[in-house]
Amino acid sequence: MSLTPYFDHIPAIRYEGPESDNPFAYRWYDPAHKVAGKTLREWCRFAVCYWHTFRGTGADPFGPGTLVRPWEDGSDSLEMAIKRADVVFDFVSKLGLDFYCFHDRDVAPEGKDVKVTNANLWKVAKRFKKLQKQTGIKLLWGTANMFSHPRFTQGASTNPSADIFAYCANSVKEMLDVSLELGGENYVFWGGREGYITLLNTDMGREADHAAAFFQMAVDYAKKIGYKGQFLIEPKPCEPTKHQYDFDSATVLAFLRKYKLEKHFKLNIEANHATLAGHDFPHELEYARVNGALGSIDANRGDWTNGWDTDQFPNDVKEWAHAAYIIIKNGGLGSGGLNFDAKLRRDSVDVEDYFHAHIGAIDTVARAFRIAGQMLSDGVFEDNLKRRYRSFDKGIGKQVESGKADFESLQKYILKKGNPDPMESGRQEYLENIFNRYC
Amino acid sequence: MSLTPYFDHIPAIRYEGPESDNPFAYRWYDPAHKVAGKTLREWCRFAVCYWHTFRGTGADPFGPGTLVRPWEDGSDSLEMAIKRADVVFDFVSKLGLDFYCFHDRDVAPEGKDVKVTNANLWKVAKRFKKLQKQTGIKLLWGTANMFSHPRFTQGASTNPSADIFAYCANSVKEMLDVSLELGGENYVFWGGREGYITLLNTDMGREADHAAAFFQMAVDYAKKIGYKGQFLIEPKPCEPTKHQYDFDSATVLAFLRKYKLEKHFKLNIEANHATLAGHDFPHELEYARVNGALGSIDANRGDWTNGWDTDQFPNDVKEWAHAAYIIIKNGGLGSGGLNFDAKLRRDSVDVEDYFHAHIGAIDTVARAFRIAGQMLSDGVFEDNLKRRYRSFDKGIGKQVESGKADFESLQKYILKKGNPDPMESGRQEYLENIFNRYC
Amino acid sequence: MSLTPYFDHIPAIRYEGPESDNPFAYRWYDPAHKVAGKTLREWCRFAVCYWHTFRGTGADPFGPGTLVRPWEDGSDSLEMAIKRADVVFDFVSKLGLDFYCFHDRDVAPEGKDVKVTNANLWKVAKRFKKLQKQTGIKLLWGTANMFSHPRFTQGASTNPSADIFAYCANSVKEMLDVSLELGGENYVFWGGREGYITLLNTDMGREADHAAAFFQMAVDYAKKIGYKGQFLIEPKPCEPTKHQYDFDSATVLAFLRKYKLEKHFKLNIEANHATLAGHDFPHELEYARVNGALGSIDANRGDWTNGWDTDQFPNDVKEWAHAAYIIIKNGGLGSGGLNFDAKLRRDSVDVEDYFHAHIGAIDTVARAFRIAGQMLSDGVFEDNLKRRYRSFDKGIGKQVESGKADFESLQKYILKKGNPDPMESGRQEYLENIFNRYC
Amino acid sequence: MSLTPYFDHIPAIRYEGPESDNPFAYRWYDPAHKVAGKTLREWCRFAVCYWHTFRGTGADPFGPGTLVRPWEDGSDSLEMAIKRADVVFDFVSKLGLDFYCFHDRDVAPEGKDVKVTNANLWKVAKRFKKLQKQTGIKLLWGTANMFSHPRFTQGASTNPSADIFAYCANSVKEMLDVSLELGGENYVFWGGREGYITLLNTDMGREADHAAAFFQMAVDYAKKIGYKGQFLIEPKPCEPTKHQYDFDSATVLAFLRKYKLEKHFKLNIEANHATLAGHDFPHELEYARVNGALGSIDANRGDWTNGWDTDQFPNDVKEWAHAAYIIIKNGGLGSGGLNFDAKLRRDSVDVEDYFHAHIGAIDTVARAFRIAGQMLSDGVFEDNLKRRYRSFDKGIGKQVESGKADFESLQKYILKKGNPDPMESGRQEYLENIFNRYC
Repeated sequence: MSLTPYFDHIPAIRYEGPESDNPFAYRWYDPAHKVAGKTLREWCRFAVCYWHTFRGTGADPFGPGTLVRPWEDGSDSLEMAIKRADVVFDFVSKLGLDFYCFHDRDVAPEGKDVKVTNANLWKVAKRFKKLQKQTGIKLLWGTANMFSHPRFTQGASTNPSADIFAYCANSVKEMLDVSLELGGENYVFWGGREGYITLLNTDMGREADHAAAFFQMAVDYAKKIGYKGQFLIEPKPCEPTKHQYDFDSATVLAFLRKYKLEKHFKLNIEANHATLAGHDFPHELEYARVNGALGSIDANRGDWTNGWDTDQFPNDVKEWAHAAYIIIKNGGLGSGGLNFDAKLRRDSVDVEDYFHAHIGAIDTVARAFRIAGQMLSDGVFEDNLKRRYRSFDKGIGKQVESGKADFESLQKYILKKGNPDPMESGRQEYLENIFNRYC
Repeated sequence: MSLTPYFDHIPAIRYEGPESDNPFAYRWYDPAHKVAGKTLREWCRFAVCYWHTFRGTGADPFGPGTLVRPWEDGSDSLEMAIKRADVVFDFVSKLGLDFYCFHDRDVAPEGKDVKVTNANLWKVAKRFKKLQKQTGIKLLWGTANMFSHPRFTQGASTNPSADIFAYCANSVKEMLDVSLELGGENYVFWGGREGYITLLNTDMGREADHAAAFFQMAVDYAKKIGYKGQFLIEPKPCEPTKHQYDFDSATVLAFLRKYKLEKHFKLNIEANHATLAGHDFPHELEYARVNGALGSIDANRGDWTNGWDTDQFPNDVKEWAHAAYIIIKNGGLGSGGLNFDAKLRRDSVDVEDYFHAHIGAIDTVARAFRIAGQMLSDGVFEDNLKRRYRSFDKGIGKQVESGKADFESLQKYILKKGNPDPMESGRQEYLENIFNRYC
Repeated sequence: MSLTPYFDHIPAIRYEGPESDNPFAYRWYDPAHKVAGKTLREWCRFAVCYWHTFRGTGADPFGPGTLVRPWEDGSDSLEMAIKRADVVFDFVSKLGLDFYCFHDRDVAPEGKDVKVTNANLWKVAKRFKKLQKQTGIKLLWGTANMFSHPRFTQGASTNPSADIFAYCANSVKEMLDVSLELGGENYVFWGGREGYITLLNTDMGREADHAAAFFQMAVDYAKKIGYKGQFLIEPKPCEPTKHQYDFDSATVLAFLRKYKLEKHFKLNIEANHATLAGHDFPHELEYARVNGALGSIDANRGDWTNGWDTDQFPNDVKEWAHAAYIIIKNGGLGSGGLNFDAKLRRDSVDVEDYFHAHIGAIDTVARAFRIAGQMLSDGVFEDNLKRRYRSFDKGIGKQVESGKADFESLQKYILKKGNPDPMESGRQEYLENIFNRYC
Repeated sequence: MSLTPYFDHIPAIRYEGPESDNPFAYRWYDPAHKVAGKTLREWCRFAVCYWHTFRGTGADPFGPGTLVRPWEDGSDSLEMAIKRADVVFDFVSKLGLDFYCFHDRDVAPEGKDVKVTNANLWKVAKRFKKLQKQTGIKLLWGTANMFSHPRFTQGASTNPSADIFAYCANSVKEMLDVSLELGGENYVFWGGREGYITLLNTDMGREADHAAAFFQMAVDYAKKIGYKGQFLIEPKPCEPTKHQYDFDSATVLAFLRKYKLEKHFKLNIEANHATLAGHDFPHELEYARVNGALGSIDANRGDWTNGWDTDQFPNDVKEWAHAAYIIIKNGGLGSGGLNFDAKLRRDSVDVEDYFHAHIGAIDTVARAFRIAGQMLSDGVFEDNLKRRYRSFDKGIGKQVESGKADFESLQKYILKKGNPDPMESGRQEYLENIFNRYC
């Protein structure tokens, strides 16, 4: 029943349980398994990314592509684009997943001018619509690539040239139209070139105003066409640009709040971007969560010893148990999901390696959700939180929280008491032991 | 005319010009020298910090204090506190500077309870008032130390114990009263313990709400007592705490905007904190500037090869030329200034070393302001900025800036044009050469 | 049967198995459990460290000590030192471990001059001898603290003052004598102040020569007195010193090989020092192993988001499974062991927290050895290595390894072949999945 | 007199002195100016690099090339290679420099098999020989690119495939022959793929043995053909590979000493590689110098806020003053030189930008040598060193240096003295002020 023959030698990937030693089976991802009231399928909403998995070549800054794919004809033609779409849907089907994600330029080549470029995109989109219907696979999110082409070197919406701003307006407009057409559940902005290469030639304030104007136009246009997908911004501190304006979750929120845009956007958090910003992945998730901005996740990992985006498939169950814990506390990701913005190592040259990478990642996340669900239902961490902050549930603490205290009433209280009560143990090592027990 | 004999063997530090080889003279800091319409004295507003320079001991995590000061009697008594105040004013006078800064605990010891602690502070404050009058030296800013004592281990205003919140309310209230009394021109918050040691026991959302309540109370109390000094928050990403909530300028602004506090606060930017957050010093200054939040500066440097706050005196003229450029573009620091939040290396054990450190730092900054003033008056960088963004001064660009463009009008424009104009050189290497020419 | 009453309320820590939820029991550390032919007790050789666990106070650069221990009288007297020794042996006994480690200054206070200092050390050493006999606890390693006292600020054996060099000679001589007396199985050098604060005042070549002379004297003296313990050097890149000469394993070996000292020294690898040097823990272990220099381990962890030595108790089973794998391949650590050079978080103020920290760490390591043993006995990774490098087992590859090939013969071979065989997949994602399956 | 017309609109770059504001002139690089007994031309030995300046495209991991060069025809043909050689020599001539550097693959394309590839190289080499004669420009060093082609993904001499080892033998043999033919003064090894992507599939010990065998073959072959150029190894910690075996200077020396290769190799130090390894540039230079291994320099800079090789042209006079100081103390670089392993920012798209970049870099270095020469001739830092270590010039210190002291004699000395003399100030801030005065 496959559309293309390229994965026919690989069995459909199914759940076989932890005891299985079949490398082409899930050991933990049972889509129907329930955790905290929802199935793993509902929590995880896994998506395959078009770019790394189907357009990445294994190139790095010191060498060209290494990954040879039997379906490619070496061209960037529209015909190849259509054929490739079939391969992608085959792959997602074989993994038994529900979603895919793409940039405009992943799926359709640029033409000789903007008009042709737009037309190319729509030809592939048409194919997608048919394939979605045929397979049931859905579009988690779409986005416009506004960083690869040389024209974006100095920025997209923050480019010093108004022509590029206009070019980007066209790109996002088309992709919003496409997202509407394909039922894309979210729309992502990743501003890889929105930032500066040197402050010496940069008008940071003017660029921020331009970016805000651009986002406002996107909001307005979506409203106009009736597109209801969630807008997401994906923070990253740097790379390719020396400094990127969407440095981390907090920086994005500072920007959105300044320009009164925050109710229209959530965050797409990527583990590797969190670490590049000097945070860890759970921090960025928790920060987004308590700010009501946790929208979706790019589920790849970095390498702490390397200062760039290594974009590896996730494989740390313990880190992900913490992540899953936060996601469950958030009630899930809403219309968001878990996109594998990850690439194979450049010497993982076999088609089988694509499967190993995705299976390992999916099992890592699935196992983490099972663990996190148990931790939440047992309540040990939540009980500890309640106990630890209990002094704010009564007396002077309650007055603080209810806005009835001021410096003078608080001073009166502590002067009378003379000295605060002694510190209680934070119990960090104990809690870490408990966490390990669940893993 | 000195109050104490400890610096009598050192001459008063005066400007002698670049040709001087007197190590106890300024070579660049001529207070009366004018740059961009103001004197260096007016631009720089240098302050000596009480803590590192007079209470720091040279201790580090692997060894106790090394710095022996002849005026210390080894005690933390109130008598010693009073005597030390005289030494501090002597030191500032000898350097010919206008300002000092302190935390409550730098200047007065804790007592057996809150009441005695408050009383101690006021006794020293009284002395300060007299010394200020006598010498003309002013208080740039004061602050409460809410991080050293063990009681603050788990936070100050974000402590899980309401007692500590109340304790902090007393501290800040008293210091606001003292700042009013002493004419302190600013009031600083540095939240060294506001953050978390582990997420596993932390209610991040509740802690943020508490911090916001605390800041609001400070604003309310200042208003009530008629204190007009500028409130400042000093960002730092970590150390001592694993993660600090005031990670960097953007994170602080995100917080302030969330809780509608931004009009009451500006930022106190420290070079070393910028680098610990993965930024450089000019970035943090420029970000604060374009957000209308550049308030004051802690003028110490870090060491990129060391992942902690090395708090060294500034000595990079080129980096400071960029910093001064931004400060001048900001119209100066308003009521803020340049505080040397810097400490001697722990083997700089001679009294002379205090002078070398301050003189070198002051000359670095003064020279930088002279360079920056020249760069601004020549206008080469500003002219380049105007040229670079000129496409937003007319046509479609101007419509974007004036809010008259939308995705559809922009698409129409670019479809008609077919392709954007080619990229112009960013001229980074050229601009860097020009910058070097000025240095 | 305890020597002191301080832990009487805590039960002796015993193995109860993974199902136990007793926080005061081991879930994985069954000392008698065999892995790869040895018991866990034999593989692990756990040691409690005197300094963090019994002399650490919870102080950090921004605050004094927080940890109150009921047995301390607040003094650094010899009497307190003797009493403290009993507490330490009680603690190690309660945990059921075999070893302890100390610096001279952890156990005995300095006196008014070198003579008294030496005498103090011997008084405590005598007590240790008795306690060792009484409890069966042994000394894994001793060392001299040549970094805390202000006299070491500018170095120990690399100090510009010959007096300090001589002082250090006395310290190490005494500690070698003590180690001989107590049967210390290793002797460690950690050069926390061997390095530079600024290159501007440093004669790096001369300092290296001095360090080499010092190590040679230690070797000569040990030989003279018949001390057979293994000498170990512990790499660390920085902190407290800006740059430390023993940056990492490779740097230490470069030094030892230059001065023909390598046969006398092995390495004491610390996880947190590995990460501060830009490596990961398995890297440093593996590098030491293949260089025949893996001697012992400081089993603490760091925090990648913090650029200093956080010295936390290990709790990452997966990382440790890799570490244990390397240790087993090394045939164990010889006379070395696993010392917990880790400290409680400064708000873990209860005596119970000491136990939680050690129990969690011991279980992490024990579980890791069980996993690693299984991985090695299944042979999957070793089989893959054999397969991957098989081209060096025959033909031209074998000639390379046996020294029979040269550029000309190799050129002839490849010219004839025309092009090399295609690359085989490195199978990284597959191997990572396998690794996860074991964890 | 130029070979090609591409730079005819740019004047020959000549020294005009600091007052010149001609952007196409040197302000500090007067080749004939003498510093410490040698001309700047003799000290600096500047080289233009073939790869970044003539083969770099401005591509980065998120976008393809941006730099359009009018002489390129878009092909990688042999004809284009020959034509490009003329352009390169024109460029070097216009700058008035003496040297160029290249990898085999920069200058000549691969053919269908090894034989054709070799033949291509020799065709271009022949052209180089003629151009060298014609212009007087010399080859500073050559090297073989053993990292770009996919075949090197898993290593060059450390590849698990013996075929690749043989392939590399051919490459280096040919380049040694070419270097002999062209009078290349050095031969460089940069092991960009010598390292591992994951330890899980790596036999680190076997790979090190292979690398050593390879270097030994290179030494043997050079001897055989009578090639006398200096062998150089260029350290780098990572990128493109996760971990590279030549991590830093110390790691390379550890390796060379292990395999008894150290007398045949020196180091090629790159500023950006130093910072990626957690060091600063002066550290790596000084470490190489005191180990007799300072061979040559790649004079590019990095960006501390970016964790990858930004390869920017040097522009920090102060940092370079320190570097030049070390180079002069080293008596220069011998047969080595200063190669600009630096690339234009990807939006510096004009031909003029190549000149700005090189002129700025050359002036930065030249100015630094002038400063360093003055510092050395004034002797202030050297005098301070002599003073600081003076206790090793007599008495017990002299006995340490002459090998006459041992632990017992040193103990006797210090016991008699009772306590060491007090610490002298390290005078860091004072020395930093002096350094600034020179800059």
